[in-house]
Amino acid sequence: MKTVFSPAHARHHPHHEISDGTLKPAVEIPSRAEMVLAAIEAAGLGEILPPEPIDRALLERIHDPAYVAFLETVWDAHRAAGRAEDEAFPFVWPTPGLRPDRAPRHLDGRMGFYSFDAGTPLTAGTFEAALASASVAVTGAGLIAAGERSAFALCRPPGHHAMADRYGGYCFFNNAALAAERLVADGRRVAILDVDYHHGNGTQAIFYDRGDVHVVSIHADPDDEYPYFLGHADEIGEGHGEGANLNLPLALGADWPVWSQALEIALGSIERHRPDAVVVSLGLDPYEADPISHFRLTSDDFSRLGARLGRIECPVLFVLEGGYAVEALGANCAAVLTAFEGG
Amino acid sequence: MKTVFSPAHARHHPHHEISDGTLKPAVEIPSRAEMVLAAIEAAGLGEILPPEPIDRALLERIHDPAYVAFLETVWDAHRAAGRAEDEAFPFVWPTPGLRPDRAPRHLDGRMGFYSFDAGTPLTAGTFEAALASASVAVTGAGLIAAGERSAFALCRPPGHHAMADRYGGYCFFNNAALAAERLVADGRRVAILDVDYHHGNGTQAIFYDRGDVHVVSIHADPDDEYPYFLGHADEIGEGHGEGANLNLPLALGADWPVWSQALEIALGSIERHRPDAVVVSLGLDPYEADPISHFRLTSDDFSRLGARLGRIECPVLFVLEGGYAVEALGANCAAVLTAFEGG
Repeated sequence: MKTVFSPAHARHHPHHEISDGTLKPAVEIPSRAEMVLAAIEAAGLGEILPPEPIDRALLERIHDPAYVAFLETVWDAHRAAGRAEDEAFPFVWPTPGLRPDRAPRHLDGRMGFYSFDAGTPLTAGTFEAALASASVAVTGAGLIAAGERSAFALCRPPGHHAMADRYGGYCFFNNAALAAERLVADGRRVAILDVDYHHGNGTQAIFYDRGDVHVVSIHADPDDEYPYFLGHADEIGEGHGEGANLNLPLALGADWPVWSQALEIALGSIERHRPDAVVVSLGLDPYEADPISHFRLTSDDFSRLGARLGRIECPVLFVLEGGYAVEALGANCAAVLTAFEGG
Repeated sequence: MKTVFSPAHARHHPHHEISDGTLKPAVEIPSRAEMVLAAIEAAGLGEILPPEPIDRALLERIHDPAYVAFLETVWDAHRAAGRAEDEAFPFVWPTPGLRPDRAPRHLDGRMGFYSFDAGTPLTAGTFEAALASASVAVTGAGLIAAGERSAFALCRPPGHHAMADRYGGYCFFNNAALAAERLVADGRRVAILDVDYHHGNGTQAIFYDRGDVHVVSIHADPDDEYPYFLGHADEIGEGHGEGANLNLPLALGADWPVWSQALEIALGSIERHRPDAVVVSLGLDPYEADPISHFRLTSDDFSRLGARLGRIECPVLFVLEGGYAVEALGANCAAVLTAFEGG
């Protein structure tokens, strides 16, 4: 399996995040990608390729051009405002009762307008890293379009929380959605299987009214877990997308027997959609030792997951999402991918 | 002029806030109220009274009972979650595209569901302080109802950003709205004049579809200032409230000549409403030396403001809102109130 990777991910290097009620050390950090890269190199997974530059028109079919322009210019605005901090957080959002229709002029207003959380710092290199991550995903999709049976987009920052016009959950561009869109452009029917511990609210929202991309997610019940405000079982899509969104929220503490039942339901749903390609949003945070998550998959379970995904009959693109147990992250990721390959 | 004050304000004692892109020392701190109290005592403004307990039914006519219950129990939930920090911040909100209709079970989800910013920490004593502040405002309204020509509700925490079911902007209960509701219950037509530097988004939203409370606000243009997502000139009320909301947003840097023109427009609008009582949301942050604001009123201008308000023909209740230049806050507040009294 070929891997696509860009060292530009390290341009996004946050030090803090706001979560669990307070300011904490960041967990979405460059060593995550480095650990995964080292593990797949050690496992001999296959060739590692750089990404091709992303087509801006494709980027702007998934993301609002005004949002893309915001991310491209926000750090210059931060500097122009005389701010010396090396990371920036929004602090007010257009929640219900406030106006969702006007992007303010002010930097803080714009940060809130284009985000939905306070846990996702902007840094000097965020745009470059996010663009590289999106390019990695789309290049991976290109490998599938060119006939590969599988590919691994080693994306960082992750993408599945990013909405068409809002960042959050450590995500800026929705890498999996962009990859899916690239495959749709290739004439394929696409399914996205999101196995990250957290619901991929961005992916769901982006395709919610579309029938050509089937979105299935296994995740912690949003009543109990981030992102809290999307990912319930009654969200089934709307309009052309009605029936093309499937959420499988699980109670905290889910282990492989529980989790793998949801996986079979997910794969059954995907099979009925008859996709020509599957994009797997590969979060490794269902892992039992993940520092911010509460599922109980073991490293062996990740091998089981990979082996099961290897029985999907159409090409599969893996897109790296979350996973914060840095020491084990690489091994668990490699376990999925090598087991997929039959290793 | 009688003043209502409760020392319970000091139970809300935050140390930090998130603003201007980063975690900073809190500016909405107990010394604010102490400075104001000392200044009005020094000025001999009049008797200082404790508040009467607030009528819960009145509180729940302005605020969603579920929101009141959330504020009442959130610190116990914080402790029950094993959190040791002495202040708590939400970190994700139901922005557009996320679901506004389901309060999550989880503490962090609930904090986001019931707030709109990250700049307003919850602390152990927040509910008691906020309830006392609301009681101060309503007791002040009771003085007007009992026939006083004027009264001063020395409220802290402030209130005008608090919405029916969301806290933010250092505000938890909307003191001015509760005072107005108390006067409405007394059969009065009420106008609220909000002179705080920041738009009173909560006050506007609470009365937006009501014709019995006329809301007029002079504030920094929300394109350039917090709260960014409400306070534009085109927000005129709706339904029964159409025409009963007037926003006078001003460019940053406004000084007395500019500001006082807006004041005349505001007072003209209020006069046409023919109120039986006026509630003044008295923010002192239009002050030239306020650390987080960008208007240019001088201490003399606050005397001019007080003298002008003294010409309002119906009873006036002053409700303290913002103002963060702690050293000058008391003097500027006393300047308004003594000039109102003709001093």
